[in-house]
Amino acid sequence: MEVEALKNCQKEIAPYIHRTPILTSETINRMLGADVYFKCENFQKGGAYKIRGATNAVLQLSDAQKERGVVTHSSGNFAQALSLAAQSLGSKAFIVMPSTAPQVKKDAVAEYGGEIIECEPNLRAREAAAQSIELDTGATFIHPSNDQNVIIGQGTAALEMLEELPDLEFIIAPVGGGGLIAGTSLAVHYFGKGCKVVGAEPYEVDDAYRSLLSGKIETNETVNTIADGLMTQLGDQSFPIIQQYVDSIIRVTENDIITAMRLIWERMKIIVEPSSAVALAAVLSDKERFAGKKVGIIISGGNVDLKKLPF
Amino acid sequence: MEVEALKNCQKEIAPYIHRTPILTSETINRMLGADVYFKCENFQKGGAYKIRGATNAVLQLSDAQKERGVVTHSSGNFAQALSLAAQSLGSKAFIVMPSTAPQVKKDAVAEYGGEIIECEPNLRAREAAAQSIELDTGATFIHPSNDQNVIIGQGTAALEMLEELPDLEFIIAPVGGGGLIAGTSLAVHYFGKGCKVVGAEPYEVDDAYRSLLSGKIETNETVNTIADGLMTQLGDQSFPIIQQYVDSIIRVTENDIITAMRLIWERMKIIVEPSSAVALAAVLSDKERFAGKKVGIIISGGNVDLKKLPF
Repeated sequence: MEVEALKNCQKEIAPYIHRTPILTSETINRMLGADVYFKCENFQKGGAYKIRGATNAVLQLSDAQKERGVVTHSSGNFAQALSLAAQSLGSKAFIVMPSTAPQVKKDAVAEYGGEIIECEPNLRAREAAAQSIELDTGATFIHPSNDQNVIIGQGTAALEMLEELPDLEFIIAPVGGGGLIAGTSLAVHYFGKGCKVVGAEPYEVDDAYRSLLSGKIETNETVNTIADGLMTQLGDQSFPIIQQYVDSIIRVTENDIITAMRLIWERMKIIVEPSSAVALAAVLSDKERFAGKKVGIIISGGNVDLKKLPF
Repeated sequence: MEVEALKNCQKEIAPYIHRTPILTSETINRMLGADVYFKCENFQKGGAYKIRGATNAVLQLSDAQKERGVVTHSSGNFAQALSLAAQSLGSKAFIVMPSTAPQVKKDAVAEYGGEIIECEPNLRAREAAAQSIELDTGATFIHPSNDQNVIIGQGTAALEMLEELPDLEFIIAPVGGGGLIAGTSLAVHYFGKGCKVVGAEPYEVDDAYRSLLSGKIETNETVNTIADGLMTQLGDQSFPIIQQYVDSIIRVTENDIITAMRLIWERMKIIVEPSSAVALAAVLSDKERFAGKKVGIIISGGNVDLKKLPF
């Protein structure tokens, strides 16, 4: 059933998303002694992979539901993605955003026709605000990551990679709420050939690493990471998939993230956000494991506030 | 003869360069009401188109000449390009660089095996230092732009564009020493179909614009531009070609350049240097002229000091 869901999703979202390019860097390959392939979701519509899952979720709604709109809470990329998906599919999006979200992300939501409702920057306030909109407007709540349709949609990035590079031995993706890594691991399970999925996570928000150890969903006490897309925790939809299909999770330091981000910017000449650099940072921090291998890295997005760069 | 030179060059340099991708941006197309295609030489080896001309120039040398090496003076991208070309072709490069050149460019030259000789940041000092190395070592001097083999090499970027997009109506390239625009105009003259070549230049260093008006090579009194690759003036090899084959030159302000650069960074998620943004700035400053047209823009390079961004 998940096989069909993935294949159907890929076909149905195709008119609304970009098939992003896969880039390589001789310098990075030389540094790692591996063949590394970067799936550039920073070039995706809305600047991140999130449009895949958002589009798939909106596509499942009835006409009456679309009429009433969708609502989500998101600190960033999913906000833009759901706004854009709703706009493309003739619906409307209510976006609950923390008041502290970067201006560049608020601007993008507004540009894509999303209606922003600001709230205090904590999970409880976000959930309450979203629930109140749901009740007031009849809009359908779509979670940024803990949603089967969203998870399936995010898996299509790995699906595209495996179509072009069927013999990949690893795919590395960053872990935030778990939607991308869960979708990726499903796609790789059904369409890979012995390929392993490895998650990449900052030490500062290593809830997924600890969740796999303890067998239950762990939370982060603090979120002192530059990888602003990875602060959220796993959910009851994403966690069981991750438990079943993800090989392991590599944790990286903040310095590792900045070094990897700078390497991508300077050598590949592409703009990636810190959360995306976490995946390359993971490979750089465990070179022996990946030496001589064909490794896919999902560059999850490129939405950065250029006024707040770490270098 | 130039037709054959271009075709031969394209074939001969192919093993040593990347065939760079051509990217598009829906946002930018919408803003301009035009179809704009970006030839991404920022993804080229050495981070700029310069490797094309440098490789072609080194390929023309005899074995004895290669043994003695090559020498140039360059404030930036040609320095890296010639170092890399010499390394790839079993020669060596002496690079005269102004002491004020960005550290990131000095590092890249060193990494590619080039030997750096620092000099005062003015043309006279650069020429004197290069000449002294020529005399001391027997190395062959290769000018960064005012050299027929270099000009032909730089033209291959446009040649690749026209192979993929034969019905382009305009190609826009920045104008510094004139090597890129001269080569581009030759390629377009022989391989385009009614395509026009337009140069883009900062007001602050508008020597090429004034040279076309006066009919002789003009110089810049000051070089107060962020486009550090465009400070040099035309030469006796590039100017006649530009006079004959370039349609016109559009001048842009420093603000135009920064706005265009930011637009490319934020929307296309690629890193381009200020000199590259000048070409898009030119199109943005004369929208009526390009409305409804198929326009190629050569993104000349992506070598930026990330510590010195204008935004």
